[in-house]
Amino acid sequence: MDPADLTAIAARARIAAGQLTPAALMEACLARIAEREPTLHAMAYLDPALARLGAARARPGALHGLPLGVKDVLDTADMVTEYNSPIWKGHQPRADAGAVAWARAAGAVVVGKTVTTEFATRTPGPTTNPHNPAHTPGGSSSGSAAGVAAGYFPFAFGTQTAGSVIRPAAYCGVVGYKPTYGTIERHGMKLMSFSLDTIGVMARTVADCALLAGAVSGRDLGDPEQAASRPWRIGLCRSHAWDNADAATQTLLLDAATRLRNAGAVVSDIELPPLYTEAAEAHALMMLSESARAMAWELMTARDQLSPALQERLEWGLTHTAEAADAARATFDAARRGFADVTSEFDVLLTPSAPGEAPLGIEWTGEPSFNSLWTGLHVPCVTVPAGMGPAGLPLGLQIVGRQGEDSRTLAAAHWIGSVAANH
Amino acid sequence: MDPADLTAIAARARIAAGQLTPAALMEACLARIAEREPTLHAMAYLDPALARLGAARARPGALHGLPLGVKDVLDTADMVTEYNSPIWKGHQPRADAGAVAWARAAGAVVVGKTVTTEFATRTPGPTTNPHNPAHTPGGSSSGSAAGVAAGYFPFAFGTQTAGSVIRPAAYCGVVGYKPTYGTIERHGMKLMSFSLDTIGVMARTVADCALLAGAVSGRDLGDPEQAASRPWRIGLCRSHAWDNADAATQTLLLDAATRLRNAGAVVSDIELPPLYTEAAEAHALMMLSESARAMAWELMTARDQLSPALQERLEWGLTHTAEAADAARATFDAARRGFADVTSEFDVLLTPSAPGEAPLGIEWTGEPSFNSLWTGLHVPCVTVPAGMGPAGLPLGLQIVGRQGEDSRTLAAAHWIGSVAANH
Repeated sequence: MDPADLTAIAARARIAAGQLTPAALMEACLARIAEREPTLHAMAYLDPALARLGAARARPGALHGLPLGVKDVLDTADMVTEYNSPIWKGHQPRADAGAVAWARAAGAVVVGKTVTTEFATRTPGPTTNPHNPAHTPGGSSSGSAAGVAAGYFPFAFGTQTAGSVIRPAAYCGVVGYKPTYGTIERHGMKLMSFSLDTIGVMARTVADCALLAGAVSGRDLGDPEQAASRPWRIGLCRSHAWDNADAATQTLLLDAATRLRNAGAVVSDIELPPLYTEAAEAHALMMLSESARAMAWELMTARDQLSPALQERLEWGLTHTAEAADAARATFDAARRGFADVTSEFDVLLTPSAPGEAPLGIEWTGEPSFNSLWTGLHVPCVTVPAGMGPAGLPLGLQIVGRQGEDSRTLAAAHWIGSVAANH
Repeated sequence: MDPADLTAIAARARIAAGQLTPAALMEACLARIAEREPTLHAMAYLDPALARLGAARARPGALHGLPLGVKDVLDTADMVTEYNSPIWKGHQPRADAGAVAWARAAGAVVVGKTVTTEFATRTPGPTTNPHNPAHTPGGSSSGSAAGVAAGYFPFAFGTQTAGSVIRPAAYCGVVGYKPTYGTIERHGMKLMSFSLDTIGVMARTVADCALLAGAVSGRDLGDPEQAASRPWRIGLCRSHAWDNADAATQTLLLDAATRLRNAGAVVSDIELPPLYTEAAEAHALMMLSESARAMAWELMTARDQLSPALQERLEWGLTHTAEAADAARATFDAARRGFADVTSEFDVLLTPSAPGEAPLGIEWTGEPSFNSLWTGLHVPCVTVPAGMGPAGLPLGLQIVGRQGEDSRTLAAAHWIGSVAANH
């Protein structure tokens, strides 16, 4: 097997057993990048010599020698960090972001920086979908999702403010995990929305996501592959966004419910109270008013170097008062406080990861209506691959847990993914 | 009157009326700095030519031409930002912090960077107390507090994670205002504790604090000097830390209660439930475990350039599990949720700003036992000068409000300060 296709856990085992070296693994990843990058365009920064040096110097630890992709909104002390904006062209941070520093401390080797949309918002980069270059990989964590799918690295960091981890992971057919808000340190991330921004991870298995997130957060996220001691109780949540899902995605979710029941789970419908629709609707105002406050320097000094779409959205954010943003945050606070009660019958919820397959074209990374609510609720979300849609592109199923119940959510996601993959 | 002694609001009125220019005001401030700085050591970075250029180019706006001090934990695009650490020596950020950018957009002129303790923690800088150079100015916002007191600028930014705005303001005899958590955008601040770090302001009047904080947060904080429509209801809160207060401070608080009653307020005792003592005790673990996570890069790459005291404290933070930090955060969450009920009889609470006068020596900036609880509760706090203690150094009274009730808290603080000043 090509080492570039190994899971992180398998690669780690071979490295620990002396069957593979970090250097050989990095060579395999760099070879894959050389092969696919002319079409995929997933890397914002890549210096193979630097990546090789990193592999040669990898520290011992839980991630010893494992190649890592880093979304280009996280600072790296040895690689430029540009947020896909001309305003930050050539920017060389002095320090690593917290997440990057902890990953390196645990032995991970940064391969390079992965393409983000402009400041992790809507205006896309050049990345294409690894399953079909005519389609978007999704965004904003475009390069991390595409790179994991293509074997550039076994795992990568993404960030999510609306749907920027879950949606591209689903579009590219990999696992995406957005932890409980605050789980992975945001120091050294280009923050756009204080109340929403969450660092997440992508990998080809749920267990690899847990490995990376656990190592960098200092948390024990358990072994997601361990069998549960009782049947999973799963809430089928069409959600307020159901009408946005295409037929294939609606069928996918309902078929998955049947398969999960047949595999032993207790599955029943859950309809969230109207407060959760209100919260979903409050997301845009909260996000964009916070982003506009955070982007003060860019707005003041280089507004014309922002894309027209971002200028327009930030200006819309600024038209709302601080009090209106407070009200949006208060709606989410109330929704967060009630979520444990509302979902008490279930271990996790099951809901679409995205409205459908990756859209045609790379100008639009798709929409986050199946993601924004969960991001604002600060709850853990995992997307697992669940077969292909009518256009031959991946579909995902999203598993949503309660705040702080990341281990349980990951375990349920692994099980649900294994059942969904067997259909 | 020397323009350096004008309040921000008075200076603004003179500038608007054509009686004072931003350039002349800046000259007065620079002259004061030249006079006092050999003893005060409040500035971490000062380039008079750059300050003059800023005054000449000041934008129109709510802060037009007003000199501003910026604590050296906030990024400035035109001045080095070093966090008082050799690790960051010569560090020149690309962008202004959000708070700085908004202040400049409103017309403020950054005079220079003010001395912080090491990364806004305990190890002090060289700043002395403006009332007596043998004493500390307090910390961590040492230079901002001392500079405002000495007339370097009418207002300045500080930051507070435990007591770093309120305590130095009290020790230097100025007004300090730590807003509700999240009020002033933290983008471009060296974050040490995600759950606690709050940008605050210092000035020589409450109204000046409201002016600056309102302008940079996009909020209407009202006119704190407007008379209240009914008597203030004030809860006298000795708090869990009462035994740490010296006799002069205990007497100050109890005398203030009498004077406030005589001036028409309704004042009665409030004893917070045990949960609030637990929260206060949880502060250190929450702060230091978060700081250790945030300081990953410094710990990994330059640990020996951290002060021994900071190394020790971060290492202590790392000895606690993420789950223990979660529990500390959960204690504060519960305390926050209950605070409105617990304090419902009152408009604001009145409590000491610090245990006493500024300690002798500049090696120790004092302790935050009268501050940490309120910081963790995310509530607005204002310290107002309240006369001198037995060593001839300033004492302060602290006014504490409920989350989001910043306007009311500022108005109560102005009134309480005016009563306290007349004793």
